[in-house]
Amino acid sequence: MAKLTTRTENYSEWYNQIVQEAQLAENSSVRGCMVIKPYGFAIWENIKNILDAMFKATGHTNAYFPLFIPKSFLSKEASHVEWFAKECAVITHYRLKNDPNGKGVIVDPEAKLDEELIVRPTSETIIWDSYRNWIHSYRDLPLLINQWANVVRWEMRTRIFLRTMEFLWQEGHTAHSTADEAEEEAKKMLMVYSDFVGNFMGIYHILGQKPEHEKFAGAVRTYSFEPMMQDGKALQAGTSHNLGQNFAKAFDVQFTNKNNQQEYVYATSWWVSTRLMGGLIMAHSDDQGLVLPPALAPIHLVVVPVFKTEEDLIAIKNYLGSALDTLKNSQITISSPTLGEWKMPVVVKIDEDSQKSPGWKYNEYELKGVPLRIAIWARDMAQGHVELYRRDTQEKQFVKIEDLASTVSSLLHDIQKNVYTKHQSLTETNTYKVDTYEEFKEKVESWFVLAHWDWTTETALQIQEETKATIRCIPFDSPEESGVDMITGKPSTRRVLFAKAY
Amino acid sequence: MAKLTTRTENYSEWYNQIVQEAQLAENSSVRGCMVIKPYGFAIWENIKNILDAMFKATGHTNAYFPLFIPKSFLSKEASHVEWFAKECAVITHYRLKNDPNGKGVIVDPEAKLDEELIVRPTSETIIWDSYRNWIHSYRDLPLLINQWANVVRWEMRTRIFLRTMEFLWQEGHTAHSTADEAEEEAKKMLMVYSDFVGNFMGIYHILGQKPEHEKFAGAVRTYSFEPMMQDGKALQAGTSHNLGQNFAKAFDVQFTNKNNQQEYVYATSWWVSTRLMGGLIMAHSDDQGLVLPPALAPIHLVVVPVFKTEEDLIAIKNYLGSALDTLKNSQITISSPTLGEWKMPVVVKIDEDSQKSPGWKYNEYELKGVPLRIAIWARDMAQGHVELYRRDTQEKQFVKIEDLASTVSSLLHDIQKNVYTKHQSLTETNTYKVDTYEEFKEKVESWFVLAHWDWTTETALQIQEETKATIRCIPFDSPEESGVDMITGKPSTRRVLFAKAY
Repeated sequence: MAKLTTRTENYSEWYNQIVQEAQLAENSSVRGCMVIKPYGFAIWENIKNILDAMFKATGHTNAYFPLFIPKSFLSKEASHVEWFAKECAVITHYRLKNDPNGKGVIVDPEAKLDEELIVRPTSETIIWDSYRNWIHSYRDLPLLINQWANVVRWEMRTRIFLRTMEFLWQEGHTAHSTADEAEEEAKKMLMVYSDFVGNFMGIYHILGQKPEHEKFAGAVRTYSFEPMMQDGKALQAGTSHNLGQNFAKAFDVQFTNKNNQQEYVYATSWWVSTRLMGGLIMAHSDDQGLVLPPALAPIHLVVVPVFKTEEDLIAIKNYLGSALDTLKNSQITISSPTLGEWKMPVVVKIDEDSQKSPGWKYNEYELKGVPLRIAIWARDMAQGHVELYRRDTQEKQFVKIEDLASTVSSLLHDIQKNVYTKHQSLTETNTYKVDTYEEFKEKVESWFVLAHWDWTTETALQIQEETKATIRCIPFDSPEESGVDMITGKPSTRRVLFAKAY
Repeated sequence: MAKLTTRTENYSEWYNQIVQEAQLAENSSVRGCMVIKPYGFAIWENIKNILDAMFKATGHTNAYFPLFIPKSFLSKEASHVEWFAKECAVITHYRLKNDPNGKGVIVDPEAKLDEELIVRPTSETIIWDSYRNWIHSYRDLPLLINQWANVVRWEMRTRIFLRTMEFLWQEGHTAHSTADEAEEEAKKMLMVYSDFVGNFMGIYHILGQKPEHEKFAGAVRTYSFEPMMQDGKALQAGTSHNLGQNFAKAFDVQFTNKNNQQEYVYATSWWVSTRLMGGLIMAHSDDQGLVLPPALAPIHLVVVPVFKTEEDLIAIKNYLGSALDTLKNSQITISSPTLGEWKMPVVVKIDEDSQKSPGWKYNEYELKGVPLRIAIWARDMAQGHVELYRRDTQEKQFVKIEDLASTVSSLLHDIQKNVYTKHQSLTETNTYKVDTYEEFKEKVESWFVLAHWDWTTETALQIQEETKATIRCIPFDSPEESGVDMITGKPSTRRVLFAKAY
């Protein structure tokens, strides 16, 4: 039975082992590309379904744009190309032919493209090229579109979920008739992410605005949520951008406004990706494996019957029958500003496999983060109870069979709250207000730091150079407070959030 | 107001205009790649959601495999490479750099891949490369996995939905411990497709097996459903393959069977794609635009209030209020062998736009195939009725307000049945049993033909050469019947289905 490396022994190895042992994903034969395995993909499907409902509840529709982008598009928006056009998958040919030496196939040199195609690293350019034909008047606005897609960035050092060459994401691309409306949309979608990350993923996070030098290429303002991982690093897992008129200008998308004047369209874009899976793992899991919030768990309750004969198994199933039926017809309810009371069915699995031992199964479902487990022996039936194990706190209790359904239901809601509270407590305990650079360097090595900063890119880059910490965001809730920059001594009016980051 | 080219004037142009005018999709700046627009994508989402539920109901789970395939993988299965490795998107480089002449970006010649990557045209090879590590014993089987993905085939002549360079699809890839089980799976998934295509898409179709020379590269047997389009051509829109041990041998995937012997794994694969959208359009639509079966329609009922003042509009909405509330809480029920009684909510849209005329709106929703439309004037309120228009038959009727909800609900079920019956009738009326090659050539020019064939590839290819018709399938329900091949006079025991095809 595999035992995980602990977080304190080797955090990075612990992460890799959870990904592997919980059967979430694995590396493929294509360097940097992952295979998302069924159990991992079931979690991603839950993430996707809930987010998709949120986007629709806020008026967005889905569409689909091409995988390929003509090379010339990437350099139309000047700052965009600096971010994205460098490390990418370039298609130069469109045909293979049999190797004349009889060894498989080779690229046909005659099938060379006139203009190379790039596998999309993000879709602003190809989408705004389409929007040019869709938007003519203020009556065509706002245009609120989202796309679920795969994207490719040629990363040299990859880690499953956190940084892969190909990853899955959603990218919202909206068009508006005023600057205010675009700003409102960018902030609204950040709050949608915050709703999802907090209420469904159970992840506490700090909301704020990126400083100038950290914002997205082509953006006027970038907003992000910044959660702390258990090693004290931040994970940048989603951003929302007010793009102003930059892409509209690059792709010449103008509209006739209400005053009958031609004007460039205002834009936003916002995305989260399979990186969220990495955050989910690193925020909650422990040395026994994955810990999942019930809102995203593919299985909520696993039943491990301990039996020798087929008759025993039948007796156990009959004994549990009505409680499990009640549970399968019950729902978990999550309160969400975006979705209201969101309900999802309780999923119960009975593991009847007779080849594997109960101990093996316990370990397996602990690794996989199933929130609740019932172990039941024939003797429990006489005593009228079952043993219920709770994954997040690792507590066991005996529950009377007549209370089972209500206890499970109430515990699932409790676990959902508890993973969040625990993560909030981790974050708050390990976020330090610091006023000297000495203390800064010590704390930021391991944790979040709130410090004054002189608002210059130079100072931020010096700090990054010397400590590897970056300004994660200017928190919305950071109060006005007079102070001085730790290094330059220049005045500052509020603290910003520093951390090392994934 | 755009008026469509009619089917008889120019069928192909009629198709293109529906795609455009119903705002389903459009060509992008990347040759051969389409943009699926929000309305078209909403239909695809309905297709996807129902199929996904069917795959899960039959025990399959989703996973995700890499977009890229190493070039060498494609030639591992000998016949596979002949089909797929020729016209494809080839990635040769992984970096761009600024053009030294200052004009945008160029491919960095130093960033050349050692082995080229191919954008997946289908995923058998990359998936079986993973399965090798997943399958060791009969206890790991069956492995029932599906993937929703984009794939790329470098087509020279493209048409939206029917043949595009990039398209969206699902590909099931299953692994089994016996040949019989793989055969059963391949047939089962064909029947799942048949359930979906018949009961949800409302498309009549002929089920059967492909002849040897028409089967998928690497398959032992290929099954397909063959629907007739309104121009009499068949649309190949989905296939299910028993792959035998071919891919297991190519990728060395062996398992220990119950007798403790090493054996190669048995496989199936099966897929449908956005091509189904083309079939949906061509099976049901008419010269006024798209006709949608309610099971796939993004909007079931559109309400067009005819009003001059805001007061009128409010009065109309109050008048309709309770009927619409009842409808919004009601469901369409489809009986499906795979899903049982499948229920979906009735979607109602009220078009309150005051800029567009009622006539413009009628045309718009007819083009978009919305199954039912209510037009309502202030005067209708005094008379206690509304005008209800039914898209499939183009019939209008007045309905009493108190009967509205029940009438709409019953009509939606009726339309669902009617589009199927109509399509079945089209197919049956235009499927001819033919015994001479003369008559064959005449009928197959425009319609389906059931004819005897001597079961040789030579004869089939001669017929294809001379008439452009192919053997679509050997229908399951084609009875034993002695006859002779139309050309060679050799004996035949049953008729096969010939048609020209998309």
